[in-house]
Amino acid sequence: MEHGGQESNIAKKEDGQAPRTSPQSRRSGRAGTQAAEVSGQAIGRMVEAFSSLPGIGKKSAERLAFAILSMPREEAFGIAQAILDLKNNSRYCTVCNNITEDDICGLCRDAKRDPSRICVVEEPSNILILERTGIFRGRYHALMGAISPLDGIGPEDLKIDGLIERLKAGTVKEVIIATNPTVKGETTALYLSKLIKPLGICVSRIAYGLPVGGDIEYADENTVQRALEGRREM
Amino acid sequence: MEHGGQESNIAKKEDGQAPRTSPQSRRSGRAGTQAAEVSGQAIGRMVEAFSSLPGIGKKSAERLAFAILSMPREEAFGIAQAILDLKNNSRYCTVCNNITEDDICGLCRDAKRDPSRICVVEEPSNILILERTGIFRGRYHALMGAISPLDGIGPEDLKIDGLIERLKAGTVKEVIIATNPTVKGETTALYLSKLIKPLGICVSRIAYGLPVGGDIEYADENTVQRALEGRREM
Repeated sequence: MEHGGQESNIAKKEDGQAPRTSPQSRRSGRAGTQAAEVSGQAIGRMVEAFSSLPGIGKKSAERLAFAILSMPREEAFGIAQAILDLKNNSRYCTVCNNITEDDICGLCRDAKRDPSRICVVEEPSNILILERTGIFRGRYHALMGAISPLDGIGPEDLKIDGLIERLKAGTVKEVIIATNPTVKGETTALYLSKLIKPLGICVSRIAYGLPVGGDIEYADENTVQRALEGRREM
Repeated sequence: MEHGGQESNIAKKEDGQAPRTSPQSRRSGRAGTQAAEVSGQAIGRMVEAFSSLPGIGKKSAERLAFAILSMPREEAFGIAQAILDLKNNSRYCTVCNNITEDDICGLCRDAKRDPSRICVVEEPSNILILERTGIFRGRYHALMGAISPLDGIGPEDLKIDGLIERLKAGTVKEVIIATNPTVKGETTALYLSKLIKPLGICVSRIAYGLPVGGDIEYADENTVQRALEGRREM
């Protein structure tokens, strides 16, 4: 108890002396402000820059900034160079809108891939996620978004024309719509389905259901309903 | 059930045609390998660079890379520049080892801060976390690590000499040891305490106890024991 008692004295002393900053004033300002005050402008700017990335809050940004600071010089410069290269060299595939450094991406050029099936996704980054499964060996098409009337995004804002052109070439037999399982993604899927079916091409939608490793107890009723509807014979 | 039935046919077709990549082959290689194959070398290098940062796995690195790709050019270049500036301009304060762009950091130069109390931390980044509380208005000293015999780190590897020199100047009345609540941090605290007390300076240790907002049910017994020992009269 002696140790604790000493600390409580110290705490009292502290309370009396230091004007405690209010939570408001501590939280105000941009993400890097306090870091800049304590550890210099360069850290502050770094924290601010990292905070602009998705999923990176102030604390993560600070941890990253200090990590870069303690890295070997070449490694840190390598990260900066990778960012510059990425912006300078990457563009969208003229066929499918995948990210590539050439006019046409590696997946579109790969003759071993089945040209009779196209998987339609919202964003180029989704292609990477689908490729990870290793199960689909056809081609892709990224719409660069989804139909969202509330955000003022209509079909004309998406890369749908390019898709229809590809389909009219006649090689494609099936279009798998892998837009997100959201209202926007679903709206886009329905729109595309109505547009493509008249071309005599099979249109499918990826399955709704329980996520692998999930617990039925925690699934929302819409998901459970879809999982039931989509049941398969064993 | 019709929809589900259609999908099951499609799934069977897929199983028959595509040689499914084994989990091993999919997980092998460096973090950016698959991203590079699907979306180009620049994305791959970016994913690899980001994966070298703490707390950033392959998936987060990919999300960050795609976020940078869709950023305005100037914003992305700003992040790269912030990294370069950080490495080029930041150094350690010659007094307390805080991060600074000058010889002596802002906290050491601030005449309004109480020079009679020094808070000792393991890393310069800890200073920022303590400053955030707004409760301590004294000076700091970063040891640049903690004593860890297993890793071959002894007291001579830490910035302890500089601390003792500062204490011998005679202004300091209290040293608050805020090393981590770990075996290394505790060992370092004990070592410093034995070293500093003979100088006639009060040595205190930050409190162990339950974290604010935590649940006693989930606290480990060591923490609960320390919380009991450190109890304070209300």
